[in-house]
Amino acid sequence: TMSPETAAGDSSGAPARCCSYHTVQRRLPVLRWLPQYSLWWLQLDLLAGVTVGLTVVPQALAYAEVAALPVQYGLYSSFMGCFVYCLLGTSKDVTLGPTAIMSLLVSSYAFHDPAYAILLTFLSGCIQLAMGLLHLGFLLDFVSCPVIKGFTSAASVIISFNQVKNILGLHNIPRQFFLQVYHTFQRIGETRAGDALLGLVCLAVLVGLRAMKGHIARIHRVELLSVRISRLIVWATATARNALVVLFAGLVAYSFQVMGSQPFTLTGETPQGLPPFQLPPFSKAEANSTVPFSEMVQDLGAGLAVVPLMGLLETVAIAKAFASQNNYRIDPNQELLAMGKTGRSWPSCLRTACNGAFGLCSRTAVNAQTGVCTPAGGLITGTLVLLSLAYLTSLFYYIPKAALAAVIICAVAPMFDARIFRTLWRVKRLDLVPLCVTFLLCFWEVQYGIVAGILVSGVLLLYTIARPRIKLSEEGVLLMQPASSLHFPAVESLRDAMHRWALAVSPPRCVILDCTYVSSLDYTVVMGLADLLQEFQKRGVTLTFSGLQGHVLQVLLSADLEGFQHFPSVEEAGK
Amino acid sequence: TMSPETAAGDSSGAPARCCSYHTVQRRLPVLRWLPQYSLWWLQLDLLAGVTVGLTVVPQALAYAEVAALPVQYGLYSSFMGCFVYCLLGTSKDVTLGPTAIMSLLVSSYAFHDPAYAILLTFLSGCIQLAMGLLHLGFLLDFVSCPVIKGFTSAASVIISFNQVKNILGLHNIPRQFFLQVYHTFQRIGETRAGDALLGLVCLAVLVGLRAMKGHIARIHRVELLSVRISRLIVWATATARNALVVLFAGLVAYSFQVMGSQPFTLTGETPQGLPPFQLPPFSKAEANSTVPFSEMVQDLGAGLAVVPLMGLLETVAIAKAFASQNNYRIDPNQELLAMGKTGRSWPSCLRTACNGAFGLCSRTAVNAQTGVCTPAGGLITGTLVLLSLAYLTSLFYYIPKAALAAVIICAVAPMFDARIFRTLWRVKRLDLVPLCVTFLLCFWEVQYGIVAGILVSGVLLLYTIARPRIKLSEEGVLLMQPASSLHFPAVESLRDAMHRWALAVSPPRCVILDCTYVSSLDYTVVMGLADLLQEFQKRGVTLTFSGLQGHVLQVLLSADLEGFQHFPSVEEAGK
Repeated sequence: TMSPETAAGDSSGAPARCCSYHTVQRRLPVLRWLPQYSLWWLQLDLLAGVTVGLTVVPQALAYAEVAALPVQYGLYSSFMGCFVYCLLGTSKDVTLGPTAIMSLLVSSYAFHDPAYAILLTFLSGCIQLAMGLLHLGFLLDFVSCPVIKGFTSAASVIISFNQVKNILGLHNIPRQFFLQVYHTFQRIGETRAGDALLGLVCLAVLVGLRAMKGHIARIHRVELLSVRISRLIVWATATARNALVVLFAGLVAYSFQVMGSQPFTLTGETPQGLPPFQLPPFSKAEANSTVPFSEMVQDLGAGLAVVPLMGLLETVAIAKAFASQNNYRIDPNQELLAMGKTGRSWPSCLRTACNGAFGLCSRTAVNAQTGVCTPAGGLITGTLVLLSLAYLTSLFYYIPKAALAAVIICAVAPMFDARIFRTLWRVKRLDLVPLCVTFLLCFWEVQYGIVAGILVSGVLLLYTIARPRIKLSEEGVLLMQPASSLHFPAVESLRDAMHRWALAVSPPRCVILDCTYVSSLDYTVVMGLADLLQEFQKRGVTLTFSGLQGHVLQVLLSADLEGFQHFPSVEEAGK
Repeated sequence: TMSPETAAGDSSGAPARCCSYHTVQRRLPVLRWLPQYSLWWLQLDLLAGVTVGLTVVPQALAYAEVAALPVQYGLYSSFMGCFVYCLLGTSKDVTLGPTAIMSLLVSSYAFHDPAYAILLTFLSGCIQLAMGLLHLGFLLDFVSCPVIKGFTSAASVIISFNQVKNILGLHNIPRQFFLQVYHTFQRIGETRAGDALLGLVCLAVLVGLRAMKGHIARIHRVELLSVRISRLIVWATATARNALVVLFAGLVAYSFQVMGSQPFTLTGETPQGLPPFQLPPFSKAEANSTVPFSEMVQDLGAGLAVVPLMGLLETVAIAKAFASQNNYRIDPNQELLAMGKTGRSWPSCLRTACNGAFGLCSRTAVNAQTGVCTPAGGLITGTLVLLSLAYLTSLFYYIPKAALAAVIICAVAPMFDARIFRTLWRVKRLDLVPLCVTFLLCFWEVQYGIVAGILVSGVLLLYTIARPRIKLSEEGVLLMQPASSLHFPAVESLRDAMHRWALAVSPPRCVILDCTYVSSLDYTVVMGLADLLQEFQKRGVTLTFSGLQGHVLQVLLSADLEGFQHFPSVEEAGK
């Protein structure tokens, strides 16, 4: 066993002195890149920032719709994340902002009420901060791949179908998925032709532009200027497609408005300017009473566990994916800190918000593609969002809901992964269980799906541990070889196997327990083995150990087992 | 790998046809021994039944005191278990009846109210029955040895201290442990001389008789008749010591009563005869209102999980211990059925009751020592309890509480195991954590201790799985060898190790992942390995696998990983 001297580029390998410059740098990553900032970096960051901004603004409006909140909240939530992550984040590509997943989760807890949404995001931020300070990042390890896949696939279906009503121009459809399906199909005859037509056109344009983007190669410097410019135009059109589609649809709606008829359902009034700087609402005034803090927290319930966890999972997943592509590492606990502080520093910003997305987040992908250099790109994006809040809100009035619905559907449809079912069937059938549980229960209630999925995969894991495979073979005596470590829940299973194959047969048989694959033992297992040794002695047969690893042997020796015998290998034990 | 043809004596190895005679026999074990019953067996069972009865009656009275219920409930709970277990139980030695542990648990949920105690035991029975039918016996595997030891040691201290007030003759002491300690010491000056003297004498006699019993050898047929008879007398005195001490104390108290003065605190009135045959109380009338069923269930709360689990754990533990001594096996799921039906068939019997004890149960030990042959011994014991309910209750009036306290203290003191702390320190220090958590929290609330202990040992187990040891060594390239199986929570840890030692160093290094000790992979791990393979490829280094077990290799091949290379051994991979 060697211990390599240095692990360059790995900050967590460094000595953790409390107040050194290095520690400050770790906690405030801005100090790492700011001293070296150059004009060339600024150019690239500026380009990336503007491009991302054009994606972010229409998405923010759309996700506010998914979260069932007034549109401006989508924008509020977009700019603050940009600024804070710029100071504290470890990944240059990630841009914090509203995502489809988080909007969906918020919608199921916030009951259409911004007060709840703000409190939820504030408390989620606090919880994430606490998790970061307590180094609880490892909890994320217990959300397995099938659970994530099941959840994102279900979310894709739920969010897409949620927008069908906007494309059809239907109103007053309930939010619960099954009721929504029922009511949408029941009232499909009430479809408004204008909304439906516009929605389908927008969808077609978006799909077309995305397909185009997938087919253009990267720009090379060796080509002709005209080729390069035309390619740049195509690329820019495809990248800013959300903004263009929304703009186009808004113009059409405005023209109809001027002409005095309006075939579309519009977004309507949006308050101008910044949200007031204030503490989150710790109580809520209703028609004739006040809902106190404790009751609001109770109403949020499981959301306080699910929202911080999933938010963090999204950001870490995306940050890791990009970091690995671009050769740097991120620190989950630092990410927690960054996200926690985002939530805390500006409570009035919707934390739906302060989250990346699951590898499918177009913003972050755009950021990486335009060659962003430092988290400063986020500053530019944030400024753009602020500017649109200040000057463009009166224009938001004319955005047709059907166009936003098309933007959302195009954003979330790729999250649905039908192949995963076939892949799991081929690779590991048992993992279909958590996948299906998560996928199906998510349609009932998103949080139930996630929690049930995590629990089911945990139970399957524990069951595997409690029932290790034990290989039996015959080498004169009976040879039993557990295929993996023996943890305390496995004792009964080992004991049953010994009884069944060695003690309960007549005459009783001698056993060699080959512990080659056993890498740790706890006290319960040691006690179980002590009992077994006694029982073997009582029947006049022997239980011998072989292939014990060094520290396992030490544990067994320190327990002073009566009649304990061990040999380095099965051959020697068999003699 | 062989598959032995038969496993004689192991009923669970038999084909599980639904309605065959064998299945009926499995579910009603009485059918196995009744057809062969003989006169000689009857003699032995009769002797054992009477001896056990003499232990059971005083214990039943004492444990009702521990459970904070009227004395007669101890007896009610004792006889029903005997009858039902006789029909359904698989272990001939176990006698169901009240135990110190169960009485303590019931006392903390029943609020001194028999209605709650009866409902709790009834529902616990139903839950155990459901667990038996659903084959959930494996849940018991997750209660580790340190948790059980911590709990029984704490219970021993709590129950013993709880009786100190009876020995001192103090009244109105609260039940919570810390308050009890405080009030007992504060009011130690109010000690009643009579109670204290009697209590200490009884304690001394009990301790002396137990020590004597430990020193007499078994009776052999070759010795002189007089020696054998005197030995038998000593043995009988020591075995029935509880009954003798209680009888002696009662006689003393009665003499004082006749003389007109009473220096002892007495048990007082006990209603005569059997409890009414009736359904358990599904609602409860109070002074001016009725407590509905739902509210009663809510009041019981966690008790509905803790009581069935611990009850089952006790019986299975003791039955297993005796079964292994006497060479037969018991079936945990059948035990669940037996216990479930005990609780259900006579609701009015206290299920505190229908439970064995943790290897320390004197009744069961006595049963085994007197050479009981079949569960029919339980019938005799049950009859004896019924007789004492019918004819002796008026005599119970005179039993001094201090004498019962002495019986209880002597019964539970041996459960305190001080050596466990030293043993764990020597064998496995990490297991001290669940032990101490359980032990200390039990003093606050017994159920918190048990639940916290189970959770802590679960978390430690999951942490071990999430952070497998990875052995690094240098053989030209870097060799990484996980010491145990890779389950999904371990992916991040493996990835971090790869980054730290191979990818984040410059130049990046080739790695051989030696999977000799990996016996299973799930989909999340496979995906993690796929990501790692891509990252290695991107850095221009290789990740090679070696020592893959057959089915692990199959999983990896079926996943079609890009760039996947494997070799049977490290030597070949290193070439």
